[in-house]
Amino acid sequence: MSDLSAVKALVFDVFGTVVDWRTSLITDFMWWGKQRGITADWPALVDGWRGMYMASMDDVRKHPERGYVMLDDLHRRSLEKLVDQFAIKGLTEADLDYLTKGWHRLHPWPDSVAGLTRLKSKFVISPLSNGNVALLTNMAKFAGLPWDLILSAELFEHYKPDPETYLGAARLLCLEPEEVMMVAAHNGDLAAAQKNGLRTAFVARPTEYGPLQKVDFEATGNWDIVARDFGGIADKLGC
Amino acid sequence: MSDLSAVKALVFDVFGTVVDWRTSLITDFMWWGKQRGITADWPALVDGWRGMYMASMDDVRKHPERGYVMLDDLHRRSLEKLVDQFAIKGLTEADLDYLTKGWHRLHPWPDSVAGLTRLKSKFVISPLSNGNVALLTNMAKFAGLPWDLILSAELFEHYKPDPETYLGAARLLCLEPEEVMMVAAHNGDLAAAQKNGLRTAFVARPTEYGPLQKVDFEATGNWDIVARDFGGIADKLGC
Repeated sequence: MSDLSAVKALVFDVFGTVVDWRTSLITDFMWWGKQRGITADWPALVDGWRGMYMASMDDVRKHPERGYVMLDDLHRRSLEKLVDQFAIKGLTEADLDYLTKGWHRLHPWPDSVAGLTRLKSKFVISPLSNGNVALLTNMAKFAGLPWDLILSAELFEHYKPDPETYLGAARLLCLEPEEVMMVAAHNGDLAAAQKNGLRTAFVARPTEYGPLQKVDFEATGNWDIVARDFGGIADKLGC
Repeated sequence: MSDLSAVKALVFDVFGTVVDWRTSLITDFMWWGKQRGITADWPALVDGWRGMYMASMDDVRKHPERGYVMLDDLHRRSLEKLVDQFAIKGLTEADLDYLTKGWHRLHPWPDSVAGLTRLKSKFVISPLSNGNVALLTNMAKFAGLPWDLILSAELFEHYKPDPETYLGAARLLCLEPEEVMMVAAHNGDLAAAQKNGLRTAFVARPTEYGPLQKVDFEATGNWDIVARDFGGIADKLGC
């Protein structure tokens, strides 16, 4: 493990690293569909939705002339396509809004809240997520995530892994990149953070994608910390 | 009282409204000066420092071509002038940094933390301060302020009372201006918030400026809520 005594803030990937989006959305939508009398293959819809995530952000990245589009709006556009594709009938505007805001109602992994609470005692802790500010704020209240502040791709008008996000977080915290540690369950996110001078911590979330998971079962880079869960990161950082 | 049922988030002025900057800085600097063997008229320095606050932000406002300058840097520039003016000798770079960061170590008014904690149970709560993000984050950890997120003039590159700050806060929260309530001890701040469509709540902080206080002893506008303290706002909002 590198010398981490300079680290003052920990910033976290959120979807998959802090919260279990797949189980949360499937459970929420199955329950809701039953109440609303809407039948659909919810697991397939949720997997399809996440499948469109990278491409939707790439589209923003490739078309700066159209301006930045926040994640709630990307989620809504992708949902509309999926509703057509899955031929789900009878959804009102309020229903589409409810489903889109499912991403605001995600549950944490079992170790997340306790681990964050320990880390908060010694470090500034914040999301550094592609979720927009309102999404991350609402999620924190729903899931009890004890963030010190909310850092979002929206503040930099750039999605991860663009350098503006990692460097923007350090800038707003008035810290050098090496005083900030990125925590993620995704090796790609950590590789980008490391390239920009941040410290890195990996936790595996091998059930994030359910049966569809293909990558990120283990650390594949030279990360500063590799831990089983957030409690393990707290142990290694002396919290 | 107006119909406030649409309000979803409360944003707070911080210096003077949430924290007692004057007593905090004077106490901190007197203690520190004694340890460091530095003699100065600390109350006069603190009052002089705050006296330069408005002009320093006006200078940023009048010179957009120079780019936005965050409050920590304005505080530092003003401090350097005061150190000359008061002929304080023997300050190192570390001393100037310590004094500047005095603004990160401010104590809350006695009702602030309990009132914010009540309000947080029903509303999103955030600073909407001219302090920069790192200053407000460090202050929250120091003073135990339970913010849901940190909204700062720095995010909008405009100081209050510029409209970009009030409207920018509503935008990041994905709320309409009338769904956001500005809380302040300063009638001028509330007037600007109201002009931009926000709801308003006033609390008097009659000792903010010590013996120098000249204004804001009472509400002078048509505010949605006027309360004795944050507990009074929580009472009126049913928290």
